[in-house]
Amino acid sequence: MTHLYKMTLSYDGTNYCGWQIQKDRKSIQHLIQDFLKMILSEDIELIGASRTDAGVHALEQVAHFLTSKEIDASRIVYSLNGLLAKDIRINKIEREKPSFHARYSAIGKIYHYNICLSYYQNPINRFYSLHVRRKLDMELLKTAAKFFIGTHDFTSFANKSDEGAAKRNPIKTIKRIDIIETIDGIRLEFEGDGFLYKMIRNIVGTILDIASKKIALENLNKILLAKDRKLAGKTAPALGLFLVKVIYDNKSDGNSSKDLK
Amino acid sequence: MTHLYKMTLSYDGTNYCGWQIQKDRKSIQHLIQDFLKMILSEDIELIGASRTDAGVHALEQVAHFLTSKEIDASRIVYSLNGLLAKDIRINKIEREKPSFHARYSAIGKIYHYNICLSYYQNPINRFYSLHVRRKLDMELLKTAAKFFIGTHDFTSFANKSDEGAAKRNPIKTIKRIDIIETIDGIRLEFEGDGFLYKMIRNIVGTILDIASKKIALENLNKILLAKDRKLAGKTAPALGLFLVKVIYDNKSDGNSSKDLK
Repeated sequence: MTHLYKMTLSYDGTNYCGWQIQKDRKSIQHLIQDFLKMILSEDIELIGASRTDAGVHALEQVAHFLTSKEIDASRIVYSLNGLLAKDIRINKIEREKPSFHARYSAIGKIYHYNICLSYYQNPINRFYSLHVRRKLDMELLKTAAKFFIGTHDFTSFANKSDEGAAKRNPIKTIKRIDIIETIDGIRLEFEGDGFLYKMIRNIVGTILDIASKKIALENLNKILLAKDRKLAGKTAPALGLFLVKVIYDNKSDGNSSKDLK
Repeated sequence: MTHLYKMTLSYDGTNYCGWQIQKDRKSIQHLIQDFLKMILSEDIELIGASRTDAGVHALEQVAHFLTSKEIDASRIVYSLNGLLAKDIRINKIEREKPSFHARYSAIGKIYHYNICLSYYQNPINRFYSLHVRRKLDMELLKTAAKFFIGTHDFTSFANKSDEGAAKRNPIKTIKRIDIIETIDGIRLEFEGDGFLYKMIRNIVGTILDIASKKIALENLNKILLAKDRKLAGKTAPALGLFLVKVIYDNKSDGNSSKDLK
């Protein structure tokens, strides 16, 4: 008899090679998985909802694992937080139905991207926001952001990841891109049903290229329709990106198949 | 002929012993002053508006220095930022009238104090907010904060600093204490004409003790009137505190005498 557990966690991605296990590098998945193996004395695979890249942060990542043990979830949380460095915190572990899958059951995700616009980078946010010194036209920025909202084939804004790229459905729906003023710049808030590999960072890079007049606003539609990654703007750096929330449909049985990020 | 320059800077206080020079420890004042001496080839004293303690951060600290040289201010900013670690950024250096004094000319200051209220500390803010796990009564917290607004003798909320403590006027005016909800808790925003040594951290500690029912709200007036530091709550840790702005009266000649923080 196996039991499925859902884990909610936060991390500062600065010192990790990202969520996913990579040979000879320190990944968040790897660290937690190893500690879980130790605590539960059995082989554990920890599946994350979003494969955040090196330097990307998470206010709320979700993962799941199967175990043959009946566990005291709050004690496992306590043990893990004792073992982990302070830049990763496990917030909760809770029992879920066997059909739940951290990635495939997700019906939406919220990401934020922080941009520091002061002349010199605010030192407090130096690991948590992209410092942009180019002059940005805020009206162009807003118009460009609005363009991406809705259902589109986002091939032009997706990098190829190692696995399964061909199988992935490139049609995604972005529900909102809000632009919020912050103490030292702006925060772009993305909500969508799912995002392709590096899609948000490619959209942010393109929006910045438009706002700084490196790419003409008029070309945006052409870039989208071309389904060619080479035409869009540069991938914005990882450090400004936060996974803020993974959304599940509480009524569903968790079987709705969703794409990878 | 000496020239007076005003410097505006930001820093992450995590890795420093504070603003002020201390023997054998790495202070922000010391670092910048040494680089200025090197660049200008003369003895320089850098006077800060606020002597932020170890671990306290600054979004906008102000300092001034005198030099016999005619300097190219933007080149000095550029050189300093090249020499300093990324956790200190000089934002601006500008000529000021000879009567200007970073500390004595200030007519007000704004400080923020961040409190993380999630069950586990948000890793992103682990160096920038106090993690409070005690259950807080938000109504009590708001009432306690409101109590401090206005002009009072704050002796009960001032630690003794090394120098000049006796000479300092303990009567201060707090213009506002706003409580702002944040992604993981609250931020207390203080604006006043000046603050005594550790006064904000002592007020925050006391407000938290009241909100967690360790100190009765009814005793607050008694504590204030007693002018006795021993009666108020514990000093809240440095890491949640930010110097956000030093306010000057642009019309004044900069001679208005103000107390030390």
